Amino acid sequence: MTRIAVVGGGQLARMMAPAATAMGVTLRVLVESAEESASLSSHEVVVGLPGDATAVRALLAEPCPDVVTWEHEHIPAEVFALAAELGVAARPGASALLFARDKIAMRERLDSLGLPMPAWRVVETEDEVEAFVAVHGGVGVLKTSMGGYDGKGVRIVRNPADAVDWIAMAADGGPPLLIEEKVAYDREVAIQVARRPSGEMRFWPLVESIQTDGVCAEVIAPAPGLSIALQAEAERIARLVATELDVTGVLAVEMFEVGGRLLINELAMRPHNSGHWSIEGSVTSQFEQHVRAVLDWPLGDTSALAPVTVMANVLGGSREHLVTAWPGLTDPGIKVHLYGKSVRPGRKVGHVTCMGEHVDEVRRRAAQAASWVRDGGAV
Amino acid sequence: MTRIAVVGGGQLARMMAPAATAMGVTLRVLVESAEESASLSSHEVVVGLPGDATAVRALLAEPCPDVVTWEHEHIPAEVFALAAELGVAARPGASALLFARDKIAMRERLDSLGLPMPAWRVVETEDEVEAFVAVHGGVGVLKTSMGGYDGKGVRIVRNPADAVDWIAMAADGGPPLLIEEKVAYDREVAIQVARRPSGEMRFWPLVESIQTDGVCAEVIAPAPGLSIALQAEAERIARLVATELDVTGVLAVEMFEVGGRLLINELAMRPHNSGHWSIEGSVTSQFEQHVRAVLDWPLGDTSALAPVTVMANVLGGSREHLVTAWPGLTDPGIKVHLYGKSVRPGRKVGHVTCMGEHVDEVRRRAAQAASWVRDGGAV
Repeated sequence: MTRIAVVGGGQLARMMAPAATAMGVTLRVLVESAEESASLSSHEVVVGLPGDATAVRALLAEPCPDVVTWEHEHIPAEVFALAAELGVAARPGASALLFARDKIAMRERLDSLGLPMPAWRVVETEDEVEAFVAVHGGVGVLKTSMGGYDGKGVRIVRNPADAVDWIAMAADGGPPLLIEEKVAYDREVAIQVARRPSGEMRFWPLVESIQTDGVCAEVIAPAPGLSIALQAEAERIARLVATELDVTGVLAVEMFEVGGRLLINELAMRPHNSGHWSIEGSVTSQFEQHVRAVLDWPLGDTSALAPVTVMANVLGGSREHLVTAWPGLTDPGIKVHLYGKSVRPGRKVGHVTCMGEHVDEVRRRAAQAASWVRDGGAV
Repeated sequence: MTRIAVVGGGQLARMMAPAATAMGVTLRVLVESAEESASLSSHEVVVGLPGDATAVRALLAEPCPDVVTWEHEHIPAEVFALAAELGVAARPGASALLFARDKIAMRERLDSLGLPMPAWRVVETEDEVEAFVAVHGGVGVLKTSMGGYDGKGVRIVRNPADAVDWIAMAADGGPPLLIEEKVAYDREVAIQVARRPSGEMRFWPLVESIQTDGVCAEVIAPAPGLSIALQAEAERIARLVATELDVTGVLAVEMFEVGGRLLINELAMRPHNSGHWSIEGSVTSQFEQHVRAVLDWPLGDTSALAPVTVMANVLGGSREHLVTAWPGLTDPGIKVHLYGKSVRPGRKVGHVTCMGEHVDEVRRRAAQAASWVRDGGAV
């Protein structure tokens, strides 16, 4: 019996379950509470935090999983130590995961590989912020090196005063800061690649990611008008990152496209929101592929099944509950994914997917359905 | 929270779980043992037999499911009575399910609807067998009216002596017998339709089903060379059966194709082996559609996603265990489904699916992969 342990009980772990079930793989998940998103679907559930050694021991206990993987990057060093002690392979490994957790380490490493990125530097003082902004059009993107997600830990700064509080926090033991050029990009894009320990890699098509208030609202796969040259450049970047950082499992490289060039924004070493379209839209979903990759099994075909697939996130609104019955969801091509999470404004509580021929029509249908799931309006 | 109860814990219930998880529907399953196929994947598990009133009460207990459905036809009347008492909708209902359990009742009902079938009659004596065989080419197919599946309860007879033991059993209180014309069919085909209580129906394309020793070995979707006329005739038949028998959920109509005509062989009122191809091959799988249909939610699009999809069953061989790791499964287009069942010769323990352009190539790939999963050979 093949068994995978996952640290983290959100929707990413939840969506690994169908793939694991089909492949006859038992999925054991460490969730923070029995009400968390992945609790419903997981085959075996351990309740506890990643920092709780007893819980992690239970996660890795007999019958031992073949491998332990993660649905987020915030994995304490003790978890890796315990996995090593118990002989459970940890994928991706600690040395790779660091670069998805620490933006300064990531920028330094990618710089050393000559990969294209926005201009950036570490900043510790207001003077350093002022100097950087002065030579980058009077504006910069200040980031905490750790702990940010979905627009948190990111701030636009135009003068040193905008940075005073974060600089004080960093000086006081908070996460170090970096500042980046504010790129006047044409669009945000992402590529996903899966890599096995033994080296095989497979890439999905480059997708466009449309953000609202720093949160991904919509993904179009493939990115409209995607050229062979741009796909090749995206694959070159993702291949170099995955290989040189020794990433195993699924890697998402979020990038800016500007004047036909790609600049790396962020890395995620796990299934990622920009890949949810693949559940229906690709021969192999990112969740199935992650399971196969961390087990070092042969990877699946990543071809798209339709000319265009659109994924639209369902973000929590003012209503406390999502609709739970679908009398009005009359568009037969819509696939609804609900995460079983409590609703808070702006929180990702589900997504919908739609496939078709024409980008504009598929986007319209997906947006209508996402809005219907959130607000209960008729589609 | 929407909740569905399922009686029966085999692979059909197991494969409902991914669809339910995605749609935020909680799946509570009555399994015969904690080791049964559906136990791993189900959200809530009740252990017991359909005839165990305490177990059925637990299945239907608070928080009450919105609906109870079945993965097989052998549902005691007491289950329907208890569901009615507790106000849980039972779909399909007892009056429909009878026609999927009792072949004589089914033949009589379909005769009354004028639907095309092989010649048949009830037989109670050797003389009746002899008379039927005499006018049908010297051969007939003797069947028990109840309890048969996968070739069991079916016997080719050429003279009354072949029927003596079954006739004795029937006379002794065993299931009544019927005899049918042995149709010299061109091929076996099946159509699936989903129907909601409120009437909406959606049909999948007619598929070809290739049997080995009375067990489905392979399904090709759509049936090669399928004409619009044949699809229309299959839909006419399935529509009439679903409507007149008041079937809700997914219905499979297994038929013989002979000289361009269709003759009804069997009915199944649940997801069925002939529809497994739809998990990957259709916009909406039979499992998702069954959940939507029994909840009376709008049905999903049943279009095929590729020119041809082939499903090949993995039937147990002489090896006690299936392969559980996939080092040799190097065909990237293969989807493997394992049911977590112990292996016995001929038992359905999994299936593989492959999509593509050309029937011969896709069949070859699927057959190779099924053989590999069973025997561990390299693909």
